[in-house]
Amino acid sequence: MKRLTILFLLLSSIGYADDGYRLWLKYDLIKDVAKREGYARSAQFIVLNGTSPVLKSAANELQTGLQGLLGKSVPIITNAGNRTGGIVLTESKGPDADIQQLNREGYRIIKKQNNITIASKSDAGVLYGAFALLRQIQTGQSIDNLALTSNPKIQYRLLNHWDNTNGTIERGYAGGTLWKWYELPATVDPRYVDYARANASLGINGTVVNNVNASARFLTDEYIQKVAALANVFRSYGIRVYLSVYFPAPKTIGGLKTADPLDPDVKKWWVDKTKEIYKAIPDFGGYLVKANSEGEPGPQDYDRTHADGANTLAEALKPYDGIVMWRAFVYKADPKADRFKAAYEEFTPLDGKFDKKVIVQVKNGPIDFQPREPFSPLFGAMPKTPLSMEFQITQEYTGFATHWVYEAPIFKECLDTDTYAKGKAGGSTVANVIDGSLHGYAMTAIASVANTGADRNWTGNPMAQANWYAFGRLAWDHTLTSEGIANEWVRMTLTSDPNAVKTITDLMLKSRGIYVDYNTPIGLSRPWSGIHFAPEPWQEKSARPDWTAIYYHRADSIGLGFDRTATGSNALAQYSPEVQRKWNNPETCPLPYLLWFHHVPWTKKLNTGRTLWDELCTRFYTGADSVGWMQQQWAQVKPAIDPEIFADVTGRLATQRMEAIWWRDSWVLYLQTYSKKPIPAPFKKPERTLEDVKRLSEIYKLR
Amino acid sequence: MKRLTILFLLLSSIGYADDGYRLWLKYDLIKDVAKREGYARSAQFIVLNGTSPVLKSAANELQTGLQGLLGKSVPIITNAGNRTGGIVLTESKGPDADIQQLNREGYRIIKKQNNITIASKSDAGVLYGAFALLRQIQTGQSIDNLALTSNPKIQYRLLNHWDNTNGTIERGYAGGTLWKWYELPATVDPRYVDYARANASLGINGTVVNNVNASARFLTDEYIQKVAALANVFRSYGIRVYLSVYFPAPKTIGGLKTADPLDPDVKKWWVDKTKEIYKAIPDFGGYLVKANSEGEPGPQDYDRTHADGANTLAEALKPYDGIVMWRAFVYKADPKADRFKAAYEEFTPLDGKFDKKVIVQVKNGPIDFQPREPFSPLFGAMPKTPLSMEFQITQEYTGFATHWVYEAPIFKECLDTDTYAKGKAGGSTVANVIDGSLHGYAMTAIASVANTGADRNWTGNPMAQANWYAFGRLAWDHTLTSEGIANEWVRMTLTSDPNAVKTITDLMLKSRGIYVDYNTPIGLSRPWSGIHFAPEPWQEKSARPDWTAIYYHRADSIGLGFDRTATGSNALAQYSPEVQRKWNNPETCPLPYLLWFHHVPWTKKLNTGRTLWDELCTRFYTGADSVGWMQQQWAQVKPAIDPEIFADVTGRLATQRMEAIWWRDSWVLYLQTYSKKPIPAPFKKPERTLEDVKRLSEIYKLR
Repeated sequence: MKRLTILFLLLSSIGYADDGYRLWLKYDLIKDVAKREGYARSAQFIVLNGTSPVLKSAANELQTGLQGLLGKSVPIITNAGNRTGGIVLTESKGPDADIQQLNREGYRIIKKQNNITIASKSDAGVLYGAFALLRQIQTGQSIDNLALTSNPKIQYRLLNHWDNTNGTIERGYAGGTLWKWYELPATVDPRYVDYARANASLGINGTVVNNVNASARFLTDEYIQKVAALANVFRSYGIRVYLSVYFPAPKTIGGLKTADPLDPDVKKWWVDKTKEIYKAIPDFGGYLVKANSEGEPGPQDYDRTHADGANTLAEALKPYDGIVMWRAFVYKADPKADRFKAAYEEFTPLDGKFDKKVIVQVKNGPIDFQPREPFSPLFGAMPKTPLSMEFQITQEYTGFATHWVYEAPIFKECLDTDTYAKGKAGGSTVANVIDGSLHGYAMTAIASVANTGADRNWTGNPMAQANWYAFGRLAWDHTLTSEGIANEWVRMTLTSDPNAVKTITDLMLKSRGIYVDYNTPIGLSRPWSGIHFAPEPWQEKSARPDWTAIYYHRADSIGLGFDRTATGSNALAQYSPEVQRKWNNPETCPLPYLLWFHHVPWTKKLNTGRTLWDELCTRFYTGADSVGWMQQQWAQVKPAIDPEIFADVTGRLATQRMEAIWWRDSWVLYLQTYSKKPIPAPFKKPERTLEDVKRLSEIYKLR
Repeated sequence: MKRLTILFLLLSSIGYADDGYRLWLKYDLIKDVAKREGYARSAQFIVLNGTSPVLKSAANELQTGLQGLLGKSVPIITNAGNRTGGIVLTESKGPDADIQQLNREGYRIIKKQNNITIASKSDAGVLYGAFALLRQIQTGQSIDNLALTSNPKIQYRLLNHWDNTNGTIERGYAGGTLWKWYELPATVDPRYVDYARANASLGINGTVVNNVNASARFLTDEYIQKVAALANVFRSYGIRVYLSVYFPAPKTIGGLKTADPLDPDVKKWWVDKTKEIYKAIPDFGGYLVKANSEGEPGPQDYDRTHADGANTLAEALKPYDGIVMWRAFVYKADPKADRFKAAYEEFTPLDGKFDKKVIVQVKNGPIDFQPREPFSPLFGAMPKTPLSMEFQITQEYTGFATHWVYEAPIFKECLDTDTYAKGKAGGSTVANVIDGSLHGYAMTAIASVANTGADRNWTGNPMAQANWYAFGRLAWDHTLTSEGIANEWVRMTLTSDPNAVKTITDLMLKSRGIYVDYNTPIGLSRPWSGIHFAPEPWQEKSARPDWTAIYYHRADSIGLGFDRTATGSNALAQYSPEVQRKWNNPETCPLPYLLWFHHVPWTKKLNTGRTLWDELCTRFYTGADSVGWMQQQWAQVKPAIDPEIFADVTGRLATQRMEAIWWRDSWVLYLQTYSKKPIPAPFKKPERTLEDVKRLSEIYKLR
């Protein structure tokens, strides 16, 4: 930590251009002297009584942070004696009143006897409390009469890294992988510590280091040693390592003739392999599995169920504190089926059939991380099987690293939606499903596909750091608001200037709506092909019918949208009756979901007073124009922002503007071939032709 | 440059752990006060008289460097008046005596009238001179009576980046690409400036930014704008941008029915495209082409020759100062042919048939960047066609980023070899071919496949920075020695401690020989499959016969090696009679080339006094053991080296040691199945079986 301390202090003191590496852990000197001295009076020393590496991380982080924020060195001592005015770290297993109300990782920060005590039942809780205290100071709040209690609402809070052995990241837009497999285990990049610090600051306590399209390499001796070297770094920050597993590994690297999960040799192979892993990584977290999904093999190859597959792995984990996260992201290449329904159809019959060490990981929506998607009907439909949430931070469908989309509203929209699983309104939200309160799950988890890469600023787009931040904060406490998180992140990361904070927070909160407007308004989805970059709503051919664009939007001469009512695929029937009532009727279905569930005539008058066609055009044009508004707003905060960050985001917004117009033009020119209607005033028809925009998209299919 | 200045100074003054980003341009404060003040007396100001951006770069770099080295601010002024004791930058087209002896990019640094004048006929020459003056100070040499004249011996000095549109680098081991295509042109990473500075410091004046397995994207409007944004940065450092082109682009993106280079529409397409590029990039350098090679399309698809293809591109470049670099790396998948002979066979008949804007780019050896390879027989065999050298800095066949191989000896060995193209010994070296002195080429060039990536330290292995450095220095002046370059690089990059400099230089000079010993001794080659990482001398099957390992080593019960004499493929006949005489006789052929040209019985007694088998074992074991020696030597320099760099290299050496033993065991266990002989004393037989090492290699074939 020493090297970081020194660098942080220096950079903050000389106004060095910000390369974004420090994320929200900036610890720049507080300019208001009175305020600084006020904090300093309460932070004269840090009492660290214990040898746990996690507690040491807490003390070190406080020391680093306070040194930066207060501009003075704060000693770490083992015993305060009679001194007061310091910070006392307390991990206590006893019946201390302060920690009665805490769960294992919760913390309480309280001012008493002129000291600030950070107490928890676990060393990790103390570490989270230390970051919370620093956050309090970073955001300029008083620490004089602190009495803060915080418990994580969800037990397992993980990042999923879709990182490959060859150094690439599937759906990564911030450079190559952070994990240098060819150098590990002997060379350990100092950056791993900073990765762990950033996650611990949010309460993230687990990381799946490899792609769900998993390589069997990770289950070989060679790679277990490499993963163990990462685990050795992360352990001091309360972070456990998990592995995505390649289901046929017993065949591929085990030399067995089958990977049938009920075969005794296969079971034994998993038992032995798991033992081997725990020998190298005593706090190994467990397995994440993508099976019988998008070409990945799985138990169904042997006429076994997902439960059979998951339970074999759970059995192997029985002697250890590890779990199986089994993904529900499955669908078959059937042109007559509705992909929307697949996960529900496959998994609800298995409810209650999973081992108690298994949690089923469900993507927020039934399709695939679309910019706006209804919640997955599985939430609320599996009362006897713990379900985990899978979000996606990396911007696979939200503009890669060039579009500014603050994702907290995506996460919140799903978490706050009422599933009506227990009938009457309220209390059956998706959040209540996954935090276990609704069905009394014994195990709770939330995960998100990470957006980190080896780019210096971790996330490519500096604004995308906020999405990592927001996921982490919501994983800890899903009741936080998108606005509150944005405000906090901006102040920790970009500026403390009140006007700039307000302007940027506002931009963030509106960014997702703007993106949806020019990209997939009114319930459109999946207008991409290939790498999910270029617009291709016209895409008719692909390796699978459900990998075309027309499969999703179903444009024809009459109208647009996927009929999922009883006259269509009837996917709506998978929801509770109350939810069905909300969405079943095209007259009352909220616009954001309209084309998800209904095939609507072009001329149909919507509740906005406009026809579908006019409303679509209004969204596409307003959305694209709004990026111009974003540019103007951003330009206004220039004086309050580091020049390098400012220039970087300015450039990205220029690209976003250009691409937003490309999206707009692609959609309206293409849909016009069906609607046969003019672009409504006051909007002007695109200056280019459908062939022009198609040609542009073709570029991104060239190798 | 301001931000760099400040950071460099700070980091050097506080002893911050070195992350390698600054490369050899460290500019740390000179600790010897007397020495520092001595320099300072001669560097009180910098006179910049001119508006050229390249001259400004020179002045800024001097200012940055001197501020760091001398710890004081040195002003840039436009006119010294009567003041003396400064540095005067002079670009002069006139008949100034100082520049008479210079070619366009050469420079002269001379102390006169108590000023140090850096003079050149070009602004780029002044920039090179500025870096030379800084190097003088960085390496602790006197600048009191300077009279330094330096001319580049080769005109075009380029890096070739095998970087792809998807962010990966073919054969890259230092992270993803530096070029952020999805952000460009609106967002311009500040790192591009530091890339340009590093290259300019060596005299590199061109960069081919995309993979020779080229994407047609780079010839679209979209991508030309992106490339232009890079060119705008590099231009101020005297660096021109070049593109690898996809030969069928007129079809792929031009919509033509053919890419036949003699088709008038195709010719016109190239003319128009080239015009478009020069409009965006007025100093565009030209095209690099891999055609009819390893599956890449080319003119032969239309029964045209390489000359036809190259000349069509040259014609398109006629109005501009741009060139065509046409690669000679061609070979056919014919199991009966000898790949060694392919380039010579295809290209020598075309000698004199290329347009004067074409230079044929030839890899140093006839196969493919092997750790040790005889020079390509094309050198000396194309008197009427300018030939360019293609080296490879990135360690495709020399251990990725985990093996320490200093490559100057590889480059020098080739450059210094006598081709005997003009008969008697001396004067016909490969260097004399490519610097134009032998055949009077009107155009000269040297290129190397880069080892840079987005890793913070640019090259993955910190020691690999030396290979970028060595290539650049040799491209400027091939008469420099491997030792001199190593010594200079160590002092600029790692330490000025004389003992440490000596130890590390010695390590560097021996590193390649050690690698060859455990990897491909006595003329073995290509024992890899797949990604060229894991040993697989046993590899018998591949997509092409000449992509197997057994094709190259030809082990059998009698012996080992590829008979390229008249009794075999007779590839030797492609060399001059004098070279043939050196290598034709297995009794006198130098050991490093023995198995390149001869199939030698296991029991054959070599001039070392050992049989082939015993000699092989001796090499493999001694080589692997020598990595242990490298570890010991490196451990000794610890006090003189930055701790972060020290730890990093220590880790990599541990990996290298492990992998060297893997190489040794793989080779001896496999070859033993043919030789049927025991491992000779004092070496102990491997502790594992052939199956064990094979299993280890299999891991690296898993996705």
